[in-house]
Amino acid sequence: MTRGKFTVAGGGPVGSLLAILLGRHGYEVGVYEGRPDSRVTSIYQGRSINIALSDRGWWSLEQIGISADTKADAIPMYHRAIHGIDGDLSELPYGKEGDAIWSVSRGGINEHLLDIADAEPNIEVYFQHRLTDVDFSTARAIFQVKDDQETVVDADYLFGADGANSKVRRLAHNFPRFSYSQTYMPQSYIELNIPANPDGTHRLEKNALHIWPRKHFMLIALPNSDGTFTCTLFLNFSGTPSFESLEDRADVERFFNENFADALEHLEDPVDVFLERTASPLFLVQVFPWSFNRKVGLIGDAAHAIVPFYGQGMNCGFEDCAELNRLIALHDHDWDAIFPAYEDARKPNGDAIAELSKRNFVEMSDLSGDRLFQLRKMIEAKFSQRFPDLWTPLYSLVTFSPEVPYSEALRVGDEQKLVMDKIMQLPGIERDWDEQYVMDQLHELATETLGDTH
Amino acid sequence: MTRGKFTVAGGGPVGSLLAILLGRHGYEVGVYEGRPDSRVTSIYQGRSINIALSDRGWWSLEQIGISADTKADAIPMYHRAIHGIDGDLSELPYGKEGDAIWSVSRGGINEHLLDIADAEPNIEVYFQHRLTDVDFSTARAIFQVKDDQETVVDADYLFGADGANSKVRRLAHNFPRFSYSQTYMPQSYIELNIPANPDGTHRLEKNALHIWPRKHFMLIALPNSDGTFTCTLFLNFSGTPSFESLEDRADVERFFNENFADALEHLEDPVDVFLERTASPLFLVQVFPWSFNRKVGLIGDAAHAIVPFYGQGMNCGFEDCAELNRLIALHDHDWDAIFPAYEDARKPNGDAIAELSKRNFVEMSDLSGDRLFQLRKMIEAKFSQRFPDLWTPLYSLVTFSPEVPYSEALRVGDEQKLVMDKIMQLPGIERDWDEQYVMDQLHELATETLGDTH
Repeated sequence: MTRGKFTVAGGGPVGSLLAILLGRHGYEVGVYEGRPDSRVTSIYQGRSINIALSDRGWWSLEQIGISADTKADAIPMYHRAIHGIDGDLSELPYGKEGDAIWSVSRGGINEHLLDIADAEPNIEVYFQHRLTDVDFSTARAIFQVKDDQETVVDADYLFGADGANSKVRRLAHNFPRFSYSQTYMPQSYIELNIPANPDGTHRLEKNALHIWPRKHFMLIALPNSDGTFTCTLFLNFSGTPSFESLEDRADVERFFNENFADALEHLEDPVDVFLERTASPLFLVQVFPWSFNRKVGLIGDAAHAIVPFYGQGMNCGFEDCAELNRLIALHDHDWDAIFPAYEDARKPNGDAIAELSKRNFVEMSDLSGDRLFQLRKMIEAKFSQRFPDLWTPLYSLVTFSPEVPYSEALRVGDEQKLVMDKIMQLPGIERDWDEQYVMDQLHELATETLGDTH
Repeated sequence: MTRGKFTVAGGGPVGSLLAILLGRHGYEVGVYEGRPDSRVTSIYQGRSINIALSDRGWWSLEQIGISADTKADAIPMYHRAIHGIDGDLSELPYGKEGDAIWSVSRGGINEHLLDIADAEPNIEVYFQHRLTDVDFSTARAIFQVKDDQETVVDADYLFGADGANSKVRRLAHNFPRFSYSQTYMPQSYIELNIPANPDGTHRLEKNALHIWPRKHFMLIALPNSDGTFTCTLFLNFSGTPSFESLEDRADVERFFNENFADALEHLEDPVDVFLERTASPLFLVQVFPWSFNRKVGLIGDAAHAIVPFYGQGMNCGFEDCAELNRLIALHDHDWDAIFPAYEDARKPNGDAIAELSKRNFVEMSDLSGDRLFQLRKMIEAKFSQRFPDLWTPLYSLVTFSPEVPYSEALRVGDEQKLVMDKIMQLPGIERDWDEQYVMDQLHELATETLGDTH
């Protein structure tokens, strides 16, 4: 006996995970993905090669009963490796001893989840099915199959897990009172590659996320398990310097030489790639509602496309799934209750991580630039170590504290900022930052302001 | 000799004013309006019957050389007439002695501006021409004429002055890196009518904007020159009470009786109108850029649809025109310079008045509810009267200070709020608010915080 039939539009990591949880709750699930099956073609066409997964992601997988097999293939990154403009290298840990964010292959995670979905008796996955229409009152969907045939799929419910450019979401624009926002960042990006050493080892430190922070732009590199690094150059779309302004080969060469000299010896044809590729835009999408007629829902990037500067995109999508998993049990399969509870629970968190991700560009790209900012982080870290119950740094709240919702992390982070603003205004803070009285003052302020929030 | 050819999509108040200023700068202008000419049909199909015009609007008309003839037909409203739930009436002035916002007929202003446009030799106005497409690189536009014929219009430049649901803006969604936000308010609205007395006089005080503030909803009434009032009921779309929850005649009757007893004796069939009409949604639209390829621009509601709670919609659109007028002269008809300068100057102000308008629902709908809020306004008014150079209340900055940009008004208003928050925290403020020491304290805080902003 089935509890009802679900159509899941999109077979990426979030769509596959959603299918698994629905299947395990007894629903009949059809997953429809526009791209071919990369397990057959060997060419993964999803976005970006690797991606950061952290505690929220692992925790969410566990909630749905998926063991952390994939963690074996993931590479822990314990700190940021910061490459100064003059080639000097420094380290900034992500959290406490042992805390790490994990570089995972997006394709690898996706294929692993698809394999699990395939093994479930009540899940069918269809590839090369491109969504063309959704009836928001009946959950009927129309897909265009690869040979231009159309297929009509009826179901009780439908979820759009079809990513940042979600077709389900775009179709929802005609839904009454649908609020929608799509905001472009000034930055665009291209991906570059650092090959492995001939013996397959990494040419840069393996267990770190490498950053070349240059204030208005930056290069980052994440390790892959085959010894390569996938690098991303974030640079303004227009202005100086920008993807628009750097047109001549000589200018691009000078740009890399001046800013990324120590990376140049490792990067594979960066100037050619820069000149050949069209930079991809970065945008945020925020919408409401996330569900329509208690029949159709949005999940993952389809509901909240964010920018990659906090490494939380897939984590947030997986967390959506974990919350839905919880609500299905809580409301005993009553979707009239589940849909509103789901969007009410997740919307504030989607908005919060969008805001945090947007802000984090400045934090990442200015890491080595602002001495006072570094000092602030050092004072915070020292205080947090001494009074862990009173102070968890914002980065750790977001990344290593799955029990704290994003919205709560944002709120606490804003309060911490006000406290630290006062500390940084103490006369002589640059000289005295390591003195006891600074800790005392911070303790007093933190107890006053944050006492009841932890 | 012409300086070039402009297509203006939309012949509402902003489109007509834009046409006039472009015409007077020597451009050949075609105005294309989808609706019929109300001067011929005698039926004005534009939105809302009357509208508030204030200093920014009058000032902007002057900048473009349009004399304030229309002010003769407008009705000054010097204060809010606040109708308590038990029928008691109180007054809250809008500004200093003599300051007024003006109730004008939207149709009247529109027709007046169309008459002026018609009188210009280089302006042609076409009605019943509905825009269907724009080429953003050539400014070519396609219109559907009333008999289903299509007409292709070439021009050097095109402006979308086609209102909150702008077709030009919707077509711009395909423009690369176009950021877009459309946000629905919880409230929707319907319009009601209060007829004139048999002798043509007004049944309520004429020179006031009437408000029945009921916290989560409100009724307002603006006077028309024919003795009638146009009333607007703002009420949540869903929840309780709401347009959705009030379905039965008995419930609607009770709703009016309980909340608007003193208005009921004047309103024309409010219960019937409530039950018959579909409530209109309220939404804000924010976009960027406002210009495309230095060929196509957006202006007025098309660029920044806001909610009506600050009475600034048309004022802001007219101000866009005044700024454009200034920039055409400043940049000597160089549209490569004018378009970016225009959007850079106006976008922050469009965003600021959007934010201010959104916030003002609470202020309007809670006018009589919160005693501390009223006290705060009284302290502010008293202080402003004694130290006008140090403190202009936010409402006056927005409404009576066309020399202060909206963005500056928002910034100063936020600073004033922080100062007043401190004053309202003084122990015994409710007892002592009229004491000298409160003024002294406020003077000290204001000098410290706002000293350099005025």
